[in-house]
Amino acid sequence: MKVTAAILIIGNEILSGRTQDTNTSTIATWLNSIGVRVNEVRVIPDVEKTIVKTLNLLRESNNYVFTTGGIGPTHDDITAESVSKAFGLRYEIHKEGYEILESYYKPGEFNEGRQKMIWMPQNAELILNPTSGAPGFRVENVFCLPGVPSIMKSMLGGLTNKVVGGKPILSHTISLKTVESEIAKSLTKVQENNKTVEIGSYPFFHAGKLGVSIVIRSDDKSKIDNCTSQILEFVNEKKIKIVER
Amino acid sequence: MKVTAAILIIGNEILSGRTQDTNTSTIATWLNSIGVRVNEVRVIPDVEKTIVKTLNLLRESNNYVFTTGGIGPTHDDITAESVSKAFGLRYEIHKEGYEILESYYKPGEFNEGRQKMIWMPQNAELILNPTSGAPGFRVENVFCLPGVPSIMKSMLGGLTNKVVGGKPILSHTISLKTVESEIAKSLTKVQENNKTVEIGSYPFFHAGKLGVSIVIRSDDKSKIDNCTSQILEFVNEKKIKIVER
Repeated sequence: MKVTAAILIIGNEILSGRTQDTNTSTIATWLNSIGVRVNEVRVIPDVEKTIVKTLNLLRESNNYVFTTGGIGPTHDDITAESVSKAFGLRYEIHKEGYEILESYYKPGEFNEGRQKMIWMPQNAELILNPTSGAPGFRVENVFCLPGVPSIMKSMLGGLTNKVVGGKPILSHTISLKTVESEIAKSLTKVQENNKTVEIGSYPFFHAGKLGVSIVIRSDDKSKIDNCTSQILEFVNEKKIKIVER
Repeated sequence: MKVTAAILIIGNEILSGRTQDTNTSTIATWLNSIGVRVNEVRVIPDVEKTIVKTLNLLRESNNYVFTTGGIGPTHDDITAESVSKAFGLRYEIHKEGYEILESYYKPGEFNEGRQKMIWMPQNAELILNPTSGAPGFRVENVFCLPGVPSIMKSMLGGLTNKVVGGKPILSHTISLKTVESEIAKSLTKVQENNKTVEIGSYPFFHAGKLGVSIVIRSDDKSKIDNCTSQILEFVNEKKIKIVER
């Protein structure tokens, strides 16, 4: 059984180039480790109509959807309200969330701005935030997380029981001191002989080293091993050096 | 006139989390500087059907589409063939591209693997590559660039005359020593009074500093200036410190 997810990055700051998204890589790495394949990623602006439409499309075609961004206290944080509209749910104060933030802040500090952060879709399930108090939330198969990378990352640990993956996706990397064109033909043959394994070829230029990393991915370790030995066979024949990365 | 673009990142390595995409930010920053707004970004796998379908959708709904990835010499590089299918064009050897690579490589080194890199959609316009020889290509409003960030970046300079933007999008950032909830209400008012300006609020935690960056974006400098003074008004009233970032 293949379990799939989409990642939906919400925020003008990514589309303007001002902010470098790193949440995709963090979430994707975690999902792959628990056997969930990321089918697609989309980055969209803080526009309600766009969020509603995109979310409704992605949650139909994937087992899980993870959103980041737009759940803070300011006017441009419209994710919670948009998710409410996407699901046709009331957008209201979350009682449990309210209590969490009320005790998180000093007396008098839980002001109107902060209270916006616990307006959520009706009956949303909270995603606890060990870093900065304000929780994320889940509605059905949609998990809404904050955009700040360190906070977002700290909340993934709490999701392990809520996201059920298939067999973990394993990967093995072979890095070679060569160029892609030297191995392209042989690698194509290995891919053709191993159609259910995903073989990627990635040139690298790093710290004065130039080479190619071959990445073999499958949920079946024996298939990876089999592929690896077929690759090592032509690597040895061609006298290509294996390098550390 | 609003000129828009979509960025299409093609590659399993981004979806697996193995590789951190940085091309989005590079392309988006460049596009914004020449007056092109990025409407959306999608990351999709190396799957022909998905590339064809997504590309046909994005090229209809945007003035420009920029793809990265999948134009190298190996079996997983299927962008050129997929773009050919999306446009209903023959996938064939590009004569001018062939000549460029033939003279780029030493005699005998322009092997079959490397020749794959100049298989392109019929009559594609080349995008020259000052870094590593193999060109990208353009078909109508779709620009196909390589995935390796340094090479991709080196090719953008050559596109300046081919991508015609609207008025450049200007931005001004005000960084404050405060938290979002302190300014949320006042900032909402400024946004309501300046509906055609895009105001974003971004908390930061960096090098021991904690604060909020307010980013004001518009293609009209006077509107940005106007917004800035309205923001500085409440910043002064609240005695919030302005910080350097």
